[in-house]
Amino acid sequence: MSKVIANMSMSLDGFIADPGDGIDLLFGWMGNGEVEVPTAVEWATFRMSPSSAEYMKAALAGVGALIAGRHLYDITQGWGGRHPMGVPVVVVTHEPPADGPSDFRFVSGVEEAVRVATELAGGKNVVVASAKIAQQALDAGLLDGIHVDQVPVLLGEGVRWFENLGKAPVRLGNPTVVEGNGVTHLAYEVTRS
Amino acid sequence: MSKVIANMSMSLDGFIADPGDGIDLLFGWMGNGEVEVPTAVEWATFRMSPSSAEYMKAALAGVGALIAGRHLYDITQGWGGRHPMGVPVVVVTHEPPADGPSDFRFVSGVEEAVRVATELAGGKNVVVASAKIAQQALDAGLLDGIHVDQVPVLLGEGVRWFENLGKAPVRLGNPTVVEGNGVTHLAYEVTRS
Repeated sequence: MSKVIANMSMSLDGFIADPGDGIDLLFGWMGNGEVEVPTAVEWATFRMSPSSAEYMKAALAGVGALIAGRHLYDITQGWGGRHPMGVPVVVVTHEPPADGPSDFRFVSGVEEAVRVATELAGGKNVVVASAKIAQQALDAGLLDGIHVDQVPVLLGEGVRWFENLGKAPVRLGNPTVVEGNGVTHLAYEVTRS
Repeated sequence: MSKVIANMSMSLDGFIADPGDGIDLLFGWMGNGEVEVPTAVEWATFRMSPSSAEYMKAALAGVGALIAGRHLYDITQGWGGRHPMGVPVVVVTHEPPADGPSDFRFVSGVEEAVRVATELAGGKNVVVASAKIAQQALDAGLLDGIHVDQVPVLLGEGVRWFENLGKAPVRLGNPTVVEGNGVTHLAYEVTRS
């Protein structure tokens, strides 16, 4: 059964990027270990602690499609045409590019994004990789899980993951916890009430 | 050796109270379990999960003094004259009350608070229990640890623990993790650089 899971690296004080969209202080755990985790693209190979690598490999094996916002698509330049996770990416945008890469779909709202991505995922999970889209999916009751890669740093300013929740409070279950190096993986289920 | 540790219950999105200073959704873990943890006062007895109880008992045994802000002192009405932790409380305020309870000291700044509390703690730890004071202590380089009782809820709005950090980013060590019920205890060391 396909689940819709929001996943981000987040500082302890809730930021998923610095004010300039920088993520250097949040993504160090993907390259600070001895275990290689290959991705679908040559330009990205992770080297993680053993526990993070095991966690990441399971996550990679379980994901069937991604949902991203247009901003993320733009600042990554469409990941050069293929996402490291090697799965189709559904981009939420009101202005689709004329010729997007074939792995990418462009849709105009979060509901359609979840519908299309779930179809593409073929029973595997859908991962929501942008903060605003995750907020919208949560407000729309479409999120099953929130997986936080919590990084031991206080950024003090930047882009918050959960800045504009329309429906709060949102109760979550007890997380499953995996302790990495430079990261604590906290996987929460969204409690439907 | 006395350590200065900030400790709060915090939502996943970084809030330590709702907009009206309410903490109901953040303190449930202190009363949702089967293990009784007595405090120094009759009006407060905790009932926690076994793991949280063990964690809390160790914390209580290690603390020698508290530092609180005036706002917290006021909204708790000075904890009725005695703090549940049963240790002296140093309150940071520019307007000390005429006749504060004997367990309480009133000082005018965070540096003095840490100095006085450390003396009172007699080698045990000093716990900083107010968000603003913790921020000031962090900025002043006076914090050794940040112990987060992270609650699986998104509040969406309220009082943030780390709202106005003067010196960021602040790097922390990998946390020690204790999994409770309705809470994940994450104990971080502040990395001095």
